[in-house]
Amino acid sequence: MFKKILIANRGEIALRVIRTCKEMGIKTVAVYSTADADSLHVKFADEAVCIGPPPSNLSYLKVSNIISAAEITNADAIHPGYGFLSENADFSRICGEHDIKFIGASPDMIAKMGDKATAKETMKAAGVPCVPGSDGIIADFDDCKKIALETGYPVMLKATAGGGGKGMRAVWKEEDLLAAWESARQESKAAFGNDDMYMEKLIEEPRHIEIQVVGDSYGKACHLSERDCSVQRRHQKLTEEVPSPFMTKKLRKDMGEAAVKAAEFIKYEGAGTVEFLVDKHRNFYFMEMNTRIQVEHPITEQVIDFDLIREQILVAAGVKISGKNYEPTLHSIECRINAEDPYHDFRPSPGKITTLHAPGGHGVRLDTHVYAGYSIPPNYDSMIAKLITTARTRQEAIDKMKRALDEFVIEGIKTTIPFHRQLMDHPDYVAGNYTTAFMNDFEMEAKK
Amino acid sequence: MFKKILIANRGEIALRVIRTCKEMGIKTVAVYSTADADSLHVKFADEAVCIGPPPSNLSYLKVSNIISAAEITNADAIHPGYGFLSENADFSRICGEHDIKFIGASPDMIAKMGDKATAKETMKAAGVPCVPGSDGIIADFDDCKKIALETGYPVMLKATAGGGGKGMRAVWKEEDLLAAWESARQESKAAFGNDDMYMEKLIEEPRHIEIQVVGDSYGKACHLSERDCSVQRRHQKLTEEVPSPFMTKKLRKDMGEAAVKAAEFIKYEGAGTVEFLVDKHRNFYFMEMNTRIQVEHPITEQVIDFDLIREQILVAAGVKISGKNYEPTLHSIECRINAEDPYHDFRPSPGKITTLHAPGGHGVRLDTHVYAGYSIPPNYDSMIAKLITTARTRQEAIDKMKRALDEFVIEGIKTTIPFHRQLMDHPDYVAGNYTTAFMNDFEMEAKK
Repeated sequence: MFKKILIANRGEIALRVIRTCKEMGIKTVAVYSTADADSLHVKFADEAVCIGPPPSNLSYLKVSNIISAAEITNADAIHPGYGFLSENADFSRICGEHDIKFIGASPDMIAKMGDKATAKETMKAAGVPCVPGSDGIIADFDDCKKIALETGYPVMLKATAGGGGKGMRAVWKEEDLLAAWESARQESKAAFGNDDMYMEKLIEEPRHIEIQVVGDSYGKACHLSERDCSVQRRHQKLTEEVPSPFMTKKLRKDMGEAAVKAAEFIKYEGAGTVEFLVDKHRNFYFMEMNTRIQVEHPITEQVIDFDLIREQILVAAGVKISGKNYEPTLHSIECRINAEDPYHDFRPSPGKITTLHAPGGHGVRLDTHVYAGYSIPPNYDSMIAKLITTARTRQEAIDKMKRALDEFVIEGIKTTIPFHRQLMDHPDYVAGNYTTAFMNDFEMEAKK
Repeated sequence: MFKKILIANRGEIALRVIRTCKEMGIKTVAVYSTADADSLHVKFADEAVCIGPPPSNLSYLKVSNIISAAEITNADAIHPGYGFLSENADFSRICGEHDIKFIGASPDMIAKMGDKATAKETMKAAGVPCVPGSDGIIADFDDCKKIALETGYPVMLKATAGGGGKGMRAVWKEEDLLAAWESARQESKAAFGNDDMYMEKLIEEPRHIEIQVVGDSYGKACHLSERDCSVQRRHQKLTEEVPSPFMTKKLRKDMGEAAVKAAEFIKYEGAGTVEFLVDKHRNFYFMEMNTRIQVEHPITEQVIDFDLIREQILVAAGVKISGKNYEPTLHSIECRINAEDPYHDFRPSPGKITTLHAPGGHGVRLDTHVYAGYSIPPNYDSMIAKLITTARTRQEAIDKMKRALDEFVIEGIKTTIPFHRQLMDHPDYVAGNYTTAFMNDFEMEAKK
């Protein structure tokens, strides 16, 4: 087993890794930027090394400084957390070259899954369903018609140069295809000076449902059921839950098997997540694979009594997994508490926390690196806490979350607590009736 | 279902009940003494009524004031918590007379179980094993010899007027009986002016292991496995765990069946605990039944994902229980954090909490009513928090507790955190090798 692990990250995930290391009797090294000197991950680690000032490319992304910190402190492994260098193939390789175990995917796996096109090709080869459509740019309208028939309506025409919805058209039947083709190309030409188009199947009422997998260094993988992350704002997840209210036993079995197939095909080692889009007919399509721990991993831990960080460390140390797949027996919800003002377009609200009262009691878990008196630096991600509730049923987990949010007091800054409190009463959320479009129509009620 | 519940208690248990009420959509009324105006249970309840000054007989034990508070606020039920009026048959009866549902045992059950002698007679009639011995006072030495033979050596001779170990003799074989009989009587005569003696079987290496039961109003009961509470100081529990390290599958089955038999015999309604002494041969003997929620109930909730307060409320509202008995699948430990100085004979340390940082993360639960800035009044019990860790194995739960205790910062007062931290490293504790005598030899190490 490793003797000392350096955590190449900050905030709650650095603290999360330190906690499990402590429980396993492994020494820890924190690294920190000058903006993070007062962070709890620095206080709770056995050693701490300053690796530079903000922004991140001078510290948390500065490979040479992190490797030096590991060498100076004699760390025999590095846990990258999420974000920063966690999916950086070069960093994974350089760690190996310095005889430091990277607790994450190999350079090869990161490379395979990091690039969208390569990942899709790999998954197709593994037999995992991907969103059907054109192979790259559509040659002409005849080609377009042919591909649309093969793909099956409805389809999305998309400008390769597109963005912000420009040069994008949903087409529901063949007689509308020509008009859409022409107007999308015109729009794209005008906006981007380029009218190259490609096509994808239109995913109706899409949900973002991901499968947690763990693979060991012997080629074996298992899945730990799903997480529904459809409640997103500008592609940022706000809250997640397991089980997905949209899940069926059969769908979990099928998605789980596909995710395990994906992981075993690339001989995936460690904890990873296979993200799928699921349409209203419960067809599912590979979106991407995250070769690292996810922000939302605690809800999985809650429903299957698994410590995923411990599992990552064990697998990295060469321990075999049982290979057993897990079904959730409880319901768990995570709310990401961000230092943002939900009443003003979720704009960041860094600053000093003057008062903090944490919720507690039955079925409540809080993962946070902040405390009363802590100043949130403006340099990083705005997430300051993850509030997780777990109960026997979904309704009880929601009721518990409402109670916990009501107890949670953070003063001095704005937070997304009022947003989550309102969400937990939203009829569509309560009914489990939401897709990735849910936040498009969401409006904060007036402050009470 | 009840519309509004008054909680006739203070501190963490009042908050605990309020939390579940909130989750169930039931309104709450807090009552408080003038010393508790700043307590969280007052802040988190929907309504709060001051019921008088300390000491408790002027407020938390003042039945008329509590009943008035319930009537003024239109509460339709009262939850008594633990301690105070929770096992007061008169209070239970008076609630009924005012058409207020007492969420606890009936006056009759409380009376049956409240008096030690009556409880023992009842349990004997139910067929639950009790500590064998004399029926009351021993007539003479011949009687003494006969009872000792029936009881089986070793036996304890005890002065009926005894206390502090005076007039008490352990006897391991018949040839020592006469000498013990005579010296114990002499000692008792000298100390108390009375030499009446009774006899009980000596319980070798006793452990305090209790069984949690729940009964409904239809005469059905079930058990939710055990809690080992052997680590006690002057009969005050310090830490509890489930499963007991001394438990076997057979012993749990036997003790569980005995506890269910006890509960069903008296048609017990609500959550209750049957406390047993277990000797080194795994014989178990009824000690007493607590007809209320226990301080240590959270560890049971953790290992079987049960909300015991919710269960109490449901049963009081007439809901049927499934009757299924539960086996623990996880391991959970509770440390009672008291405002006491473990380096000075655990003397109380009331005062103002200047800093509080709560531990968190995977497998950590904290139940507390205190916060930074809160002043602990000197009038009440010194328990200020219950720290609970849960994991797949006992060793992992201990490791998690060590980590959580290390993170727990309470400044301004002394607490028992250093005691628990040392306990978690004690070789006998770690080995699960402890009896109720464990604390007799415990000494705090010098402060680090």
